[in-house]
Amino acid sequence: MRIAVLNGPNLNLLGVREPELYGRESLADIERRLRVVGRELNVDLEFAQRNGEGELIEVIQSLRGRANGALINAGAYSHTSLAIRDAFAAVQVPFVEVHLSNIFAREPERRHSMLASSALALVCGFGANGYEFALRGIVASLDRE
Amino acid sequence: MRIAVLNGPNLNLLGVREPELYGRESLADIERRLRVVGRELNVDLEFAQRNGEGELIEVIQSLRGRANGALINAGAYSHTSLAIRDAFAAVQVPFVEVHLSNIFAREPERRHSMLASSALALVCGFGANGYEFALRGIVASLDRE
Amino acid sequence: MRIAVLNGPNLNLLGVREPELYGRESLADIERRLRVVGRELNVDLEFAQRNGEGELIEVIQSLRGRANGALINAGAYSHTSLAIRDAFAAVQVPFVEVHLSNIFAREPERRHSMLASSALALVCGFGANGYEFALRGIVASLDRE
Amino acid sequence: MRIAVLNGPNLNLLGVREPELYGRESLADIERRLRVVGRELNVDLEFAQRNGEGELIEVIQSLRGRANGALINAGAYSHTSLAIRDAFAAVQVPFVEVHLSNIFAREPERRHSMLASSALALVCGFGANGYEFALRGIVASLDRE
Amino acid sequence: MRIAVLNGPNLNLLGVREPELYGRESLADIERRLRVVGRELNVDLEFAQRNGEGELIEVIQSLRGRANGALINAGAYSHTSLAIRDAFAAVQVPFVEVHLSNIFAREPERRHSMLASSALALVCGFGANGYEFALRGIVASLDRE
Amino acid sequence: MRIAVLNGPNLNLLGVREPELYGRESLADIERRLRVVGRELNVDLEFAQRNGEGELIEVIQSLRGRANGALINAGAYSHTSLAIRDAFAAVQVPFVEVHLSNIFAREPERRHSMLASSALALVCGFGANGYEFALRGIVASLDRE
Amino acid sequence: MRIAVLNGPNLNLLGVREPELYGRESLADIERRLRVVGRELNVDLEFAQRNGEGELIEVIQSLRGRANGALINAGAYSHTSLAIRDAFAAVQVPFVEVHLSNIFAREPERRHSMLASSALALVCGFGANGYEFALRGIVASLDRE
Amino acid sequence: MRIAVLNGPNLNLLGVREPELYGRESLADIERRLRVVGRELNVDLEFAQRNGEGELIEVIQSLRGRANGALINAGAYSHTSLAIRDAFAAVQVPFVEVHLSNIFAREPERRHSMLASSALALVCGFGANGYEFALRGIVASLDRE
Amino acid sequence: MRIAVLNGPNLNLLGVREPELYGRESLADIERRLRVVGRELNVDLEFAQRNGEGELIEVIQSLRGRANGALINAGAYSHTSLAIRDAFAAVQVPFVEVHLSNIFAREPERRHSMLASSALALVCGFGANGYEFALRGIVASLDRE
Amino acid sequence: MRIAVLNGPNLNLLGVREPELYGRESLADIERRLRVVGRELNVDLEFAQRNGEGELIEVIQSLRGRANGALINAGAYSHTSLAIRDAFAAVQVPFVEVHLSNIFAREPERRHSMLASSALALVCGFGANGYEFALRGIVASLDRE
Amino acid sequence: MRIAVLNGPNLNLLGVREPELYGRESLADIERRLRVVGRELNVDLEFAQRNGEGELIEVIQSLRGRANGALINAGAYSHTSLAIRDAFAAVQVPFVEVHLSNIFAREPERRHSMLASSALALVCGFGANGYEFALRGIVASLDRE
Amino acid sequence: MRIAVLNGPNLNLLGVREPELYGRESLADIERRLRVVGRELNVDLEFAQRNGEGELIEVIQSLRGRANGALINAGAYSHTSLAIRDAFAAVQVPFVEVHLSNIFAREPERRHSMLASSALALVCGFGANGYEFALRGIVASLDRE
Repeated sequence: MRIAVLNGPNLNLLGVREPELYGRESLADIERRLRVVGRELNVDLEFAQRNGEGELIEVIQSLRGRANGALINAGAYSHTSLAIRDAFAAVQVPFVEVHLSNIFAREPERRHSMLASSALALVCGFGANGYEFALRGIVASLDRE
Repeated sequence: MRIAVLNGPNLNLLGVREPELYGRESLADIERRLRVVGRELNVDLEFAQRNGEGELIEVIQSLRGRANGALINAGAYSHTSLAIRDAFAAVQVPFVEVHLSNIFAREPERRHSMLASSALALVCGFGANGYEFALRGIVASLDRE
Repeated sequence: MRIAVLNGPNLNLLGVREPELYGRESLADIERRLRVVGRELNVDLEFAQRNGEGELIEVIQSLRGRANGALINAGAYSHTSLAIRDAFAAVQVPFVEVHLSNIFAREPERRHSMLASSALALVCGFGANGYEFALRGIVASLDRE
Repeated sequence: MRIAVLNGPNLNLLGVREPELYGRESLADIERRLRVVGRELNVDLEFAQRNGEGELIEVIQSLRGRANGALINAGAYSHTSLAIRDAFAAVQVPFVEVHLSNIFAREPERRHSMLASSALALVCGFGANGYEFALRGIVASLDRE
Repeated sequence: MRIAVLNGPNLNLLGVREPELYGRESLADIERRLRVVGRELNVDLEFAQRNGEGELIEVIQSLRGRANGALINAGAYSHTSLAIRDAFAAVQVPFVEVHLSNIFAREPERRHSMLASSALALVCGFGANGYEFALRGIVASLDRE
Repeated sequence: MRIAVLNGPNLNLLGVREPELYGRESLADIERRLRVVGRELNVDLEFAQRNGEGELIEVIQSLRGRANGALINAGAYSHTSLAIRDAFAAVQVPFVEVHLSNIFAREPERRHSMLASSALALVCGFGANGYEFALRGIVASLDRE
Repeated sequence: MRIAVLNGPNLNLLGVREPELYGRESLADIERRLRVVGRELNVDLEFAQRNGEGELIEVIQSLRGRANGALINAGAYSHTSLAIRDAFAAVQVPFVEVHLSNIFAREPERRHSMLASSALALVCGFGANGYEFALRGIVASLDRE
Repeated sequence: MRIAVLNGPNLNLLGVREPELYGRESLADIERRLRVVGRELNVDLEFAQRNGEGELIEVIQSLRGRANGALINAGAYSHTSLAIRDAFAAVQVPFVEVHLSNIFAREPERRHSMLASSALALVCGFGANGYEFALRGIVASLDRE
Repeated sequence: MRIAVLNGPNLNLLGVREPELYGRESLADIERRLRVVGRELNVDLEFAQRNGEGELIEVIQSLRGRANGALINAGAYSHTSLAIRDAFAAVQVPFVEVHLSNIFAREPERRHSMLASSALALVCGFGANGYEFALRGIVASLDRE
Repeated sequence: MRIAVLNGPNLNLLGVREPELYGRESLADIERRLRVVGRELNVDLEFAQRNGEGELIEVIQSLRGRANGALINAGAYSHTSLAIRDAFAAVQVPFVEVHLSNIFAREPERRHSMLASSALALVCGFGANGYEFALRGIVASLDRE
Repeated sequence: MRIAVLNGPNLNLLGVREPELYGRESLADIERRLRVVGRELNVDLEFAQRNGEGELIEVIQSLRGRANGALINAGAYSHTSLAIRDAFAAVQVPFVEVHLSNIFAREPERRHSMLASSALALVCGFGANGYEFALRGIVASLDRE
Repeated sequence: MRIAVLNGPNLNLLGVREPELYGRESLADIERRLRVVGRELNVDLEFAQRNGEGELIEVIQSLRGRANGALINAGAYSHTSLAIRDAFAAVQVPFVEVHLSNIFAREPERRHSMLASSALALVCGFGANGYEFALRGIVASLDRE
């Protein structure tokens, strides 16, 4: 089983950017933790971070026929991008939406996700732990089928 | 550490009610799984399910000074009850919101949560696994403080 | 065949409460009339009135596997309760929504029903006669299946 | 006592048009049933179906001083015509609104009636039975006065 | 100079219909008064009342190249008909909108006119006098050009 | 009979201000014409123009028990002032709203009048003629009572 | 004269719950103060606090024919409950709405009251003093009739 | 194969009405062009233009079982008529919506089509060419089935 | 301690203006009663009524450094004036909002206050008694600090 | 004459992606068909597909002074991108909007186009045929000038 | 060249009023700075501050034919006054809107300007420097013409 | 001190694109002027223009720890991009928003800025001069701290 872990704009600055809001772990720290969980669950992981919307879409397209599922924290694009949702529909890869902070307790423009209505599940507010839960959750959902 | 696991209206019918939507596990099955996780994490759990809004509020009030946190799947009250949110604020108990289904992919009246803006975190769409993730997540969040 | 006749908050005051709006028949008068119709149609009836939302839900849950249908005048909860709609969905009991007055000719907050989109049918504005029509209608609908 | 039974656009196709939604009875079948009920209740009935809004208005105007009440299923005009509501007000004929399907469980543009706020009562969702209920209901209401 | 005086649905009932709201003068009375004013101002008048939207449109189309202006009280169509506004644009005949009652002091659905944004002027609330003012006003406006 | 003719902000610039929109007659010209009509109708007129909202209110208050009615072109305050409407209600003086241009064919913020729902009648789009019609109309309405 | 003093969900925690927002006086303290005022004004008082919506409704129903008026701080139900407003209408008991904090200076969902449009009066923002003012105010209003 | 070409209110004035917006070809010119294309594609065409909504509905009803598809330019009714959409649903005739001008670049009330959500396809902005494309397109779509 | 009592547009007509709505006490009567209460509480009072928005602002500005608090019934400006709210913020004088009638039971445009979100407290619906409660309330609030 | 044919995000997956919705023809198939039509009409075509918004903008900018018009299927960006509309305005290249499916019969977020108000014309719902119509239509429109 | 510098309600308190928000410079300080710039640019300046809306309008009217342009910080009237915008249109004096703070980062009611759509330009957020930029900017714009 | 000057999509076409709206100066001309001002103020400037949203984000990220502030004219992204606002928050670089035209006098979709609520200040409508004012303004603001 192969799962992609995708991160959107500004998440390359994790650990540096507003740490009181997003925590002190860097994206590399999170990826390291996920690899440990991946080995335990016996799934291959691949990672990608992109700041551009078009580039994220190309990463998603490349998953077609190669990945069984994906985790995505699309950052600010979560709230504005219909094209990312289309890309998942086009390649038919089930995905789970992850956010570090509880987006529903933030500013109004962040309280709506364009992706959530097509997602398998959504986790937010657990900081970096959310990625681990999302990974365990998607593997369990895919195993069940 | 003591965590309460609260369930709202109609969740007593779990496993029986619309199983294609909510899964075949009963609430008792879920509570059994959470007890195993609770022992692993060394936390005490207590469980309550109520169909009435006022009764849920009284359970929440009773947690004051006795529980460190709570998981709540408030069912349909999640979308309409300001009084449950007030109850958590009144007793200052941090909580995580759980839903079995992905509420953001359902009918419009279920796409907004009255509780989420005060919650520590939200998990939805993983079926019964979501309760386990919520439990692990809240324990990690409380340990960090 | 067994049909439940459910009434929500403040309907116990019927005949007394704002008679120019709701008529002078009491809830007992209405139930007496319905029993006559029930005998004619050869259906068993059971009656319940509750002021609390949670208590109405519990009555609805108790119908599961026991009643073939229900009439409900949920009073003011008709306009605010998603949990009552969920309860009917959970026990899979078809129901008809009844109102004494024409709710669409009243104040704006009463012009929307949370239940109607799941109801088999809706009758309003005929005063106490509406209960009789609803009973005849649901029996005809159930017979047809 | 004289009651008019009015049907609006596309109802001449009843029984033929989307039968899974509107049933297999034709408008002639419904009128035949209503005639039987009319004899039982000792009321004269008259029937009219029109596809044009202006033509429906002229039928309504012709009721002035001649009919004691009316049933109307104004079809799609129910949701857009203020002029039909005005026609009833102009001739002071009380009317009951009837719909075959539960309009509140259909597409958004059908969930609001322009007529309902002036109607004596509304019945929807019982298929052809609704006409019978409406007829019995309006006769009872007019008798009471 | 030739001016058409057009009246829409239900205005044929004037004097009879809700006289406390619309006054006791009939449409024939109003037309008689306008003819007197027409002679004084030396303009030819023609009159038409239609209950149907399509029929009003055809009257308007027939004005092309024949009438210099029009007065219209489109009744309830004033609030819903884009096609009447289009008909005036198609034949390029300037028009004044007239209402017997002050539409801005009535129910919400009557407080917006679909015609007003293309009208030369609007008069409402003066009862039958409004037609006379509209006639004098449009003649003065056309003279000025 | 005594009628006040009130004008609001910027109307002192009439004839000078955007003449392609408001015409070339000055406020003095309009008042001169109205005096002629007043003599014909045998009513006393008084005139006031104010740029301030509070000052207009004070003029309106001064009409109490002294004037039988008023014409008002409140200019831009027509669209924003609840206090002017209150002033008329306080002194119980019936009034007609006048505008030179057709406000319903202008920018969105001018398409709603705060005064119209309390006015006896409204005239707009006839330029300076509108004042004359308003004067004749209010005298006719007051005579009828 | 008999006045009921009703408190809704979470108000039993007064003095304990968020004291920087709601003050340090407990509900018992407030009731003690009101008893003193009641003796001065020569009115009988009765007190009830309920967390459930249905239970509050039953308390209100029990006032019928027994109490002359009521004060109510319905807490979070003030913003969501139509059924409580209906209960007051059903028993025809005039009431005054009280809030400890200025609800209009709080979060958006608290800036609208479902009860206020039926209330005799509203007092908010004076902390526990508001109850005393409400009591003196309702007694004066009832005396005046 | 038989295709109906329907035109709504004011389209009989084509070529005459606002030619800078709608072009100089008359409806007869357009029909002549379509006949040429019809012969090329080997389909029978029939044409109808109506100004009335009810009359358009009757033309649509007459297509039942006789026509395989329809083109419709419903003019201003495109934006307000639910009854025309219902007529197509009732007779199960697939249709393509055509407009001469680009309706999305015009006034707000023309930017929404009531028909488009049931149409097979929509073409607008190509002037009279749009009818030809619509004809070729619907024939290709029907051939594919 | 010094408290200003400010009244806005049309309140000079109190006792005269719509007495069934606003009561028969004049503003002078209210001020006389407040002076009695002021002596009891040992506070100096000053009074002002203005019909103009700019003039009310100047009165508020003049309170700077001289008054400890203010009561204001801003009449219709309560619903439209941001500048009055700014004036209080500019001079840092805490104020209580007073209305004679229950503004939440009146027309929609009066159900929102521009001032309330900056006020210390709000009292409405008690007629002239509301001023007394507001005075006692603000003195108690200021004493507490 | 030179026409550019531009495709946006995820359209490179055509034929593969959700074929029941978008058809089985690939983008290469469509381009092959358009080349045949281009030769017939004697116009040069150039093709580009981009997944990124900025990259589409750069393609559009490059058309300046080189292309006479463009067809664009901007995929999901059609609904969110103001910058693409600006790019066309900046280079003054007229364009036609194309969609394979009828966007007005899909989910709400796809029912509004950001581009349409600047487009020459719009075609949707004809599958791959729509590109051919758009090409023929734009050439005819440009020839006419 | 002559430029007027106008300030609205509460700006006379500058330097004193909420200095953490509006800065410590008084209006006199700002005017002194502007005079220096005026001499450099060789333009005459005149200054006015008014708290009343009507008074500001009169100052604007007085600029007619005397001033080439104006800077205005209309304070809270910026968000509510259509009459001030009308005054500028009436006298045809181009103006620049200035705000000390960034109004788009403040409360919702301050995020919309009634004046901006008629202004030449807008500057906000630079404190007192904004006046200088506005002066230099308007002079440059007027010079260019 | 180091300030970045960033320009978004289509601004590379400045001077060429719609010059009647955006002026005839090219971006190079503007940068040349700013360099002169930069030398006067003794600040280092760096310039970047990007058409892609992701690429602008990367430029902003690169400013972290290297630039003291930024000017940005984000073009059409100003109205749609949350991700650009996030990028500034992530790197904590204060910025001023600049627009050549007065965006508040243009089409509705351009009257709201997604960036303005996080900006230090906003300047629009002064054409190329606005960049100079923004530069002087941000330097003054940064000096003050």
